[in-house]
Amino acid sequence: MDTIGVGLIGSGFMGKCHALAWSAVKPVFGSNRTPHLVALADVDSDVATKRATEFGFERATADWRDLLADPAVDVISITAPNQFHAEMAIAALGAGKHVWCEKPMAPTLDEALAMRDAAAASDAVAILGYNYIQNPAIRHIAKLLGEGAIGRVSHVRFEMDEDFMASPDAPFGWKHDAASGYGALDDFAVHPLSILHVLIGDVREVMIDMAKPFDDRATADGSRRAVETYDVASALIRLDDGISGTLLVSRAAWGRKGRLAIQIFGTHGAILFDQERGNELQLYRSEDPVGEQGFRTVLTAPIHSPYDRFLPAPGHGLGFNDFKTIECHELLECIADRNGMTIDFDVGLTIERTVHAMARSFETGQWQEVNPAD
Amino acid sequence: MDTIGVGLIGSGFMGKCHALAWSAVKPVFGSNRTPHLVALADVDSDVATKRATEFGFERATADWRDLLADPAVDVISITAPNQFHAEMAIAALGAGKHVWCEKPMAPTLDEALAMRDAAAASDAVAILGYNYIQNPAIRHIAKLLGEGAIGRVSHVRFEMDEDFMASPDAPFGWKHDAASGYGALDDFAVHPLSILHVLIGDVREVMIDMAKPFDDRATADGSRRAVETYDVASALIRLDDGISGTLLVSRAAWGRKGRLAIQIFGTHGAILFDQERGNELQLYRSEDPVGEQGFRTVLTAPIHSPYDRFLPAPGHGLGFNDFKTIECHELLECIADRNGMTIDFDVGLTIERTVHAMARSFETGQWQEVNPAD
Amino acid sequence: MDTIGVGLIGSGFMGKCHALAWSAVKPVFGSNRTPHLVALADVDSDVATKRATEFGFERATADWRDLLADPAVDVISITAPNQFHAEMAIAALGAGKHVWCEKPMAPTLDEALAMRDAAAASDAVAILGYNYIQNPAIRHIAKLLGEGAIGRVSHVRFEMDEDFMASPDAPFGWKHDAASGYGALDDFAVHPLSILHVLIGDVREVMIDMAKPFDDRATADGSRRAVETYDVASALIRLDDGISGTLLVSRAAWGRKGRLAIQIFGTHGAILFDQERGNELQLYRSEDPVGEQGFRTVLTAPIHSPYDRFLPAPGHGLGFNDFKTIECHELLECIADRNGMTIDFDVGLTIERTVHAMARSFETGQWQEVNPAD
Amino acid sequence: MDTIGVGLIGSGFMGKCHALAWSAVKPVFGSNRTPHLVALADVDSDVATKRATEFGFERATADWRDLLADPAVDVISITAPNQFHAEMAIAALGAGKHVWCEKPMAPTLDEALAMRDAAAASDAVAILGYNYIQNPAIRHIAKLLGEGAIGRVSHVRFEMDEDFMASPDAPFGWKHDAASGYGALDDFAVHPLSILHVLIGDVREVMIDMAKPFDDRATADGSRRAVETYDVASALIRLDDGISGTLLVSRAAWGRKGRLAIQIFGTHGAILFDQERGNELQLYRSEDPVGEQGFRTVLTAPIHSPYDRFLPAPGHGLGFNDFKTIECHELLECIADRNGMTIDFDVGLTIERTVHAMARSFETGQWQEVNPAD
Repeated sequence: MDTIGVGLIGSGFMGKCHALAWSAVKPVFGSNRTPHLVALADVDSDVATKRATEFGFERATADWRDLLADPAVDVISITAPNQFHAEMAIAALGAGKHVWCEKPMAPTLDEALAMRDAAAASDAVAILGYNYIQNPAIRHIAKLLGEGAIGRVSHVRFEMDEDFMASPDAPFGWKHDAASGYGALDDFAVHPLSILHVLIGDVREVMIDMAKPFDDRATADGSRRAVETYDVASALIRLDDGISGTLLVSRAAWGRKGRLAIQIFGTHGAILFDQERGNELQLYRSEDPVGEQGFRTVLTAPIHSPYDRFLPAPGHGLGFNDFKTIECHELLECIADRNGMTIDFDVGLTIERTVHAMARSFETGQWQEVNPAD
Repeated sequence: MDTIGVGLIGSGFMGKCHALAWSAVKPVFGSNRTPHLVALADVDSDVATKRATEFGFERATADWRDLLADPAVDVISITAPNQFHAEMAIAALGAGKHVWCEKPMAPTLDEALAMRDAAAASDAVAILGYNYIQNPAIRHIAKLLGEGAIGRVSHVRFEMDEDFMASPDAPFGWKHDAASGYGALDDFAVHPLSILHVLIGDVREVMIDMAKPFDDRATADGSRRAVETYDVASALIRLDDGISGTLLVSRAAWGRKGRLAIQIFGTHGAILFDQERGNELQLYRSEDPVGEQGFRTVLTAPIHSPYDRFLPAPGHGLGFNDFKTIECHELLECIADRNGMTIDFDVGLTIERTVHAMARSFETGQWQEVNPAD
Repeated sequence: MDTIGVGLIGSGFMGKCHALAWSAVKPVFGSNRTPHLVALADVDSDVATKRATEFGFERATADWRDLLADPAVDVISITAPNQFHAEMAIAALGAGKHVWCEKPMAPTLDEALAMRDAAAASDAVAILGYNYIQNPAIRHIAKLLGEGAIGRVSHVRFEMDEDFMASPDAPFGWKHDAASGYGALDDFAVHPLSILHVLIGDVREVMIDMAKPFDDRATADGSRRAVETYDVASALIRLDDGISGTLLVSRAAWGRKGRLAIQIFGTHGAILFDQERGNELQLYRSEDPVGEQGFRTVLTAPIHSPYDRFLPAPGHGLGFNDFKTIECHELLECIADRNGMTIDFDVGLTIERTVHAMARSFETGQWQEVNPAD
Repeated sequence: MDTIGVGLIGSGFMGKCHALAWSAVKPVFGSNRTPHLVALADVDSDVATKRATEFGFERATADWRDLLADPAVDVISITAPNQFHAEMAIAALGAGKHVWCEKPMAPTLDEALAMRDAAAASDAVAILGYNYIQNPAIRHIAKLLGEGAIGRVSHVRFEMDEDFMASPDAPFGWKHDAASGYGALDDFAVHPLSILHVLIGDVREVMIDMAKPFDDRATADGSRRAVETYDVASALIRLDDGISGTLLVSRAAWGRKGRLAIQIFGTHGAILFDQERGNELQLYRSEDPVGEQGFRTVLTAPIHSPYDRFLPAPGHGLGFNDFKTIECHELLECIADRNGMTIDFDVGLTIERTVHAMARSFETGQWQEVNPAD
């Protein structure tokens, strides 16, 4: 069959992002099945109708379960809030639909485990929306590492920082409530971990510290309430083969807007990347002539596949939403039984186990192993 | 009517770029009429059919004139080679269609003039594809200048450089033949001039030098042929109000991939921009406290409209194709009799007159006025 | 008295650096007593004679104790290897000489403690050669923090990286022997700690991990020997007032030559610095107008005292040796009973206690307090 | 003889800069004759005495001609205002002294010519203070170009910008009076021309435009006076071998503090440099593997001689005054009949002829040749 029927749950920013990807993937890549935008579900039926029209979906519904019952729907994009991911993904897989679920998997490890099991029990494809790994710059770093461009990797440093919690004047919100999780750890750590997985490998042991830049914040009634989450988290990490590293995250880092800074050191060079300048990477090769060694700023270009599917000339720049289109293409490759590069539910579970080990480390003040049997 | 019928002529890179914009504009902006992709024309009918399917057009044709006759087509994207622009645009306007024509207008001033006259005689909207001006960073610079953030502008420097002609081993091609024009001047100068128009104003006088980095190049038969075009052009420019500047272009600048570097100096500050890092601008304000003055690297953000239509968080980055989607939205605003920011055929003609004045300056070795009556 | 007699122990790189500072301090600052270069001691008497001539010292000696006995010597620069610092500094102070001793104080805490006690018992001035704090950029950061330019500091990240141990082909050397200490921890950590002290405060608790990028290295006899020291160290740190942070060092970080990168986050902004571009700092103020916020790259200038003593124009750049001249001036200010900004033996001891606490943390795998009573 | 007697005329910033260089050159380089600071002349005898003490000169005088008569003086540093250069340099050479004269040579070509002739008629060494060429980064660029690292050079762009005239509130001063020269052209153009000479060659033809950002400025009596000089100058330049380029200068460029930006494009690569980050250069080689090409940021290092004379480790940074010390060393090499790299009076004259040709170009509005017989 030449088309593939798409259902979308959620129509906020990530819903729009998925919709754009589904619209662009065929014009950009050409080779895939043509997405047919069947139905959009949003809990607010007016919003559902409005967004379905804007995004080009044929039907709108306030009940996401309608998508499961619809034989025209082959794949479901899940962009609802995190606490619904498990229920929706498991149901969709049970209905034989492919699943493209936004990260993270779920608030609790048990739910994530159930999602993984549902995916394992299904013939359908189930992937998570970790689109930073789809940036041609990141994919080229993976290629360089695979070719041994910087030799054996020995040390890595990852930072992910934004400043949306940096203002002391921001009022107490749900993200300051312990019910929302640990804070920056939950918001950000999974992203660098997804990139670590693709580039180097998984984390084996963690030691973490977390901090609250603000003790309390103003509430609507004029009083102040103690902040229960941590806007800053700093982790020491150990991987296989003696690789050491750090993973530092903050959502209170003034001036950082979408920083995802990577430093990878190897026996014969180093690679740097920062998402804020996401159309370039920096490469240092110790084999360069003495006196001419330096970090090369490599701008992404058609040679860094699949940049060429978007633009014929180097240095003209892709954007965040383009990475989502690439992810959509990779999903379609998986569905077509080809070799799509994605974070599936197995890997996703490992990532979440790592985050939970970090949380345990903070509670115990001790190094923790990332136990695959947790 | 809620939809607008789209015809597309050409299906190469720029055709794809237009198609992506037509697909994305409604999901991104929401408020526009919904594009209905009616028909795609490409001189090769097999290609036309293939691309129509990929890009989501209903019909394909090898004859672009079919689009003129089609009542379902309201607007025509012209992405065919430059020498066909005049004929196509004039015919489309004559058929009452809106026109979105890729830059530049036409190889000769006479043709450009005829296009301008056709647009003036029509009720339809006619704009040119100068999408660099749609970058939220550029639009924010326009806003800053309008607010007097750096005072009165006194001096500007523009550079546009790439390296696709930099290799001595590249064979003689059509771009080295004088029939293709002057070289880098034609390839690049119109882009900075479009930005100059939007940010500051039009050029009044020009003095230029051009150069050939390579005297000759290898031909297919093993001989060498003299290069007739100029890969490098350097212009002194004068604008109104005593504003001076330079406009430097090269297509033989090794290492430059999509450089479009801007320096604007005013009485109270300066602004810098480089398209290779197109998601940021730099602002220097002389009113900042002494000892703390410096260029601020401002990352584009939702506050820099219409970045917010694409992404809810700052610093996550738009790409080249996103700027085309913004341009498409501005076109739809114009068609809806709202205030779209575009380069219309009037302004486009002024830009091309400037380029022709530069060519005359090179031939005469003298300063030349940009004569509106040329 | 208008002159001050100088003795110098050691004539390697740091000896040369001290000699240059002693020669430059009067022309640069004008206001100080005039250094009189009395005598240079180097264990190799030929070298001592040669360097004394080059550096402009009147006399040379192979016995550093000669300097103690010389009434013409008022102050002694100690640039001999670390293991001699304690003996020399204590003897010099005992002889009533002022002491300018290169960092670190000594290999063992006991020796450092004895040095501190000798300084406390003396009327002379005793300081350590932590010249990074003398960079006008760092001093301006101190001023900005003091003025509350970024509000209350909540989080800091320090990195110090070089690549002189990055090559797998470097043979086993004394720095790979456990007798030399812990490795990168000893080589580098004291520098960021000196800056931390000046800018923010002292470290209270530490948790560290260390790593060996290379298990073994080639020896002169063709065999391989296990590396006993750690080229990489990564520390979580806690300061007073809930300030959290990280301190990461590596001497095997390919591409890093003199990186000393600082990130300081406050409630109203952030400050960045990197010694590799040591003539600039970056400042982000959250009070800047919305839409114009960004890191300002501030180039050092005459307003950033004492840059003005070296150069009358901004942006022209000081070098590493200039910072030593500033340090020399601060020492002379201390000697003149004015307010010199230096790291004295008290603070130096705190810095070394911090390093020792880090070492304990690695051995125990536990958080360690920096105990002032160690 | 092992020492060399030094006389210094002038004790402002450049006088101090020369004094520091004379003090540092022996400790830094070791191999030269030892400078003996004999006498300092300043028109104000109190200042002369004060500075002589600070700078370490034995004697002070208010009459610079005393230096000529002093047999202990072998070499004279001339740092008096430009209008005195010719008289002083010619007299010094006539007295058999070596001359180290600050740039530019003199306000008029006739005077410069007389200086050149005096140097030609003398056995003494006569050089000009163009110390930017002494930066190890610039010297390494010269080496790279000499080795063909970027192939044959085809195009160059030089910019030199500062902002000390950028404020509209700065009062009318002598630099706004036509008697001071043309403005930015005189202030800055000679620096890039000195670098061009060292790196690539001399300019053959020029075409220039100049501009006044401000028509008038406030005077002390509260009125306004028309500005007679040009704060901005932009030149098209042609060199031998078909090399084209631009040379742009401004002293009203807000935000630029010590910018001296260089872009050199060749047939196999490109090199970039900016004095504001003067301890690094950028190199692009088209022979680098496809997909890994980019500008390498090369930090200066001991391998970039004579950086090694100042610092043993890379990336630690030299400053502006260090370049003067290198220049002093090169002068001593010339005096010792060795191969010092300096700008002598012959080359200096060519540089000034180029500036004068630029001025003629502005007056005539025509291209002008740099005529060696002017």
